[in-house]
Amino acid sequence: MSGMNTAYLALERHFARIASLQDAIGLLGWDKEVMMPSGAAERRSENLAMLEGLRHEILTAPIMADLLDQAETAASGTDWQRANLTAMRRQHTRATALPQDLVEAHAQATTLCEIAWRDARQNSDFKALLPALTEVLNLTRAIATATGEACGLSPYDALLDSFDPGTRQADIDPLFTRLRAELPALTAAALEAQASLPPAVTPQGPFSLPRQEALGRELMQRMGFDTTRGRLDVSLHPFCGGATHDVRLTTRYREDDFIPAMMGVMHETGHALYEMGLPDAWISQPVGQSGGMTLHESQSLIMEMQFCRSAPFTRWLAPRLREAFGVADTAAGWDAQSLHRQLIHVAPGFIRVDADEVTYPAHILARFELEKALVSGDLPLADLPAAFNERIHTLLGLRVPDDRQGCLQDIHWPAGLFGYFPCYALGAMTAAQLRQAACTQEPAILPAIGQGDFTLLLGWLRTHVHGRASSVPLRQIVQDATGAPLGADAYLAHLRTRYVDRAPNA
Amino acid sequence: MSGMNTAYLALERHFARIASLQDAIGLLGWDKEVMMPSGAAERRSENLAMLEGLRHEILTAPIMADLLDQAETAASGTDWQRANLTAMRRQHTRATALPQDLVEAHAQATTLCEIAWRDARQNSDFKALLPALTEVLNLTRAIATATGEACGLSPYDALLDSFDPGTRQADIDPLFTRLRAELPALTAAALEAQASLPPAVTPQGPFSLPRQEALGRELMQRMGFDTTRGRLDVSLHPFCGGATHDVRLTTRYREDDFIPAMMGVMHETGHALYEMGLPDAWISQPVGQSGGMTLHESQSLIMEMQFCRSAPFTRWLAPRLREAFGVADTAAGWDAQSLHRQLIHVAPGFIRVDADEVTYPAHILARFELEKALVSGDLPLADLPAAFNERIHTLLGLRVPDDRQGCLQDIHWPAGLFGYFPCYALGAMTAAQLRQAACTQEPAILPAIGQGDFTLLLGWLRTHVHGRASSVPLRQIVQDATGAPLGADAYLAHLRTRYVDRAPNA
Repeated sequence: MSGMNTAYLALERHFARIASLQDAIGLLGWDKEVMMPSGAAERRSENLAMLEGLRHEILTAPIMADLLDQAETAASGTDWQRANLTAMRRQHTRATALPQDLVEAHAQATTLCEIAWRDARQNSDFKALLPALTEVLNLTRAIATATGEACGLSPYDALLDSFDPGTRQADIDPLFTRLRAELPALTAAALEAQASLPPAVTPQGPFSLPRQEALGRELMQRMGFDTTRGRLDVSLHPFCGGATHDVRLTTRYREDDFIPAMMGVMHETGHALYEMGLPDAWISQPVGQSGGMTLHESQSLIMEMQFCRSAPFTRWLAPRLREAFGVADTAAGWDAQSLHRQLIHVAPGFIRVDADEVTYPAHILARFELEKALVSGDLPLADLPAAFNERIHTLLGLRVPDDRQGCLQDIHWPAGLFGYFPCYALGAMTAAQLRQAACTQEPAILPAIGQGDFTLLLGWLRTHVHGRASSVPLRQIVQDATGAPLGADAYLAHLRTRYVDRAPNA
Repeated sequence: MSGMNTAYLALERHFARIASLQDAIGLLGWDKEVMMPSGAAERRSENLAMLEGLRHEILTAPIMADLLDQAETAASGTDWQRANLTAMRRQHTRATALPQDLVEAHAQATTLCEIAWRDARQNSDFKALLPALTEVLNLTRAIATATGEACGLSPYDALLDSFDPGTRQADIDPLFTRLRAELPALTAAALEAQASLPPAVTPQGPFSLPRQEALGRELMQRMGFDTTRGRLDVSLHPFCGGATHDVRLTTRYREDDFIPAMMGVMHETGHALYEMGLPDAWISQPVGQSGGMTLHESQSLIMEMQFCRSAPFTRWLAPRLREAFGVADTAAGWDAQSLHRQLIHVAPGFIRVDADEVTYPAHILARFELEKALVSGDLPLADLPAAFNERIHTLLGLRVPDDRQGCLQDIHWPAGLFGYFPCYALGAMTAAQLRQAACTQEPAILPAIGQGDFTLLLGWLRTHVHGRASSVPLRQIVQDATGAPLGADAYLAHLRTRYVDRAPNA
């Protein structure tokens, strides 16, 4: 800590308390989804709100502004200490930008809107959601405006920045424009290439749940998951949560298909490896935390999509699956080729979370364009269903039959998460660009993956991504790791190689 | 809230935050024992210490003293509000009595001493523990003195009061003197009565763990455990923890004997029913919390010892056990009489936690007498092993072979828990007196228990104990529920009836 002043050191102590509260919130959130008995729900919500309130209070205490001013005036120290100070300032600016009554009104509105959304989706009744969603949108716009003013950002950038520090609409618009221009033809070509093959045979269940669970545990450990610092459990919606040094993954099992749980574990393991690779020395400081939604999603997708659905890995996986489920080597549908065809099957559909890698970005494009227009006020909320359906028709060639399969399918907007959707597609682009760079710099990575060995890949990710935490922005991490700014090239090339060319190592 | 002033209402808000922190600490503590991966231990300790620090900070914030003064000056309101204010003042007085460096030194010393104790016990090496235990005792005495000065209590009373608000050495010395006088003869008579019977036949294992678990779940629900507000899991040392509206029980299973896990579940269910019976309206306030260690232990013991080991319940339980483990009605050792003889078997031994109901108080008497002398300084710590062994010989007629089975067996003193042991025996006395009163006032209770029906008993406990929470002290709860002050009469009568007379309903 030499070179840093007492104000900075005092800030570190305050932020260490905030990090402890975040750990508590993370573990209680995990418990809520995995362990909590139903009758504790109301009290748990109160407890979590109280802990969030304490966190906010420490962050916005009057002394913090003074300490930040003093620390910045005197700033010297290491790069990491200065980056930590920047991250502290960012959190403080964002937290103090908003009046408490706006924060509380937004929290209450999203809680009510999420409840209303469950019924509205069930009944495919957008009108029933409109009043609650209007309230959420208005309050989100107020938050975006106030945060934007404090940070010198446009309202939409202020929202984007809350999920992905440093990411700006002006930087990502061209990437999405590129996707919009190239994806329709690429999707058509992928479907054509797929249609030229004989129909795929899929293994028939039921698949024993204990065997699925044992398989998931074996794969996650093989990928590098440290079971002394994390767990795998079951929840309704799979997620990666928990706390520092205690990463909690969940999945869910179906008896009729083992693929969703298996790929879910690989996806969440990607998130977990990122958390586990953050530098120990900085775990309780803002600079030591993961670098935003895009990077996080890139780490789940580089595992699930880039490597675990690759042909080389599939060739290693197929015999392992036959062994895990005790089927004969000659059983129909259990060969590597059949498995790979199943893992990269393309089928345009209405539901984003069920979409394949090729059609997924179209779902994001639709939401990105629509939410920008909603936040700017260009699109009245009442017109959302029609606009949503028009976009899906343009992008995917599908006629949305009802709002349940259209604009009501996602919880994000009712939950106040505007500016979040683009991170999914940006994560996919980042994952493709990182894979390309990793495999170029370390040609042994893909052959090792083809032997079920993730060590080289994980080492590369630790050095170039995980270990850097939030010390530099996403943009810098991508530039340093790949030698180029984040773009759509690697991603489009990846889709073409895997889905159109159907190359043997894709 | 009519009649109460704004200062009081502000205090309620501060204490609601403290209660939320306690819930978080309770759930993270449960997770630590039941779920946490090993590598998260250090970080979890930091997180828990941070949450404890926040709790202490809210409780001792400068504004709290002012609010308490104002609220007390203006005090009116309901009985519960006034009792709440009293409980708030008590917590505040105790928290502000101690300088922060003393609290931290004590926490650190106990952490180190607990670690040293594990090795010292293993090696039966008291000398190796002496330096660390001396530090803990000195700091505990400093805490007792400072707290005592702030509360107007002797040092030992200050310690007692921290586990059992309102309990004083002067009140309990006569009860323990009575036990000391009567137990040796009673134990001899119990052993004689037992020896006059033919040797007991015990069922032979292995006992399937899933069946043991299913049995435990059935019994706890039958006793009134609300599974929408709690869970049963496995941990190394069984406990009852968790949070308000979310009571977490644990047990552990052995394949060779199902009795320990089953009785453990019944014991912890007694604790849980107390927590579940606290009044909803006051869950986040000091007055709504359970009334100390003696009452808590009385609720586990009234279930486990008083009712679940009674002959009437055993007659209901025996066929249920045969069914649970799938053995024939005529199987040797599975009849009610054999089961009951096993559940009330008396055997003087060295280990407190393995002791039966008759010899258990001797273990507490030894510790109570010794810890008073340690705190007062009359007994030098170096002389503890000899003094401990002398007490056990006097009280139980046993020669302690080594310190592992002597003064090193319990974690309490290394953990700084002086003044805690008497609560176990006071809990047993309270349980006996409550049972006697309940069965006199509601003669249908015991016959119902003999049908496996706990409804009447639970209703009586809710009214007379659980629902009163901390609104009045232990002394008042016992007086109001039983018409007499807490004494040793009911307990000694219970032991005589069950173990000497071997009465058919004991």
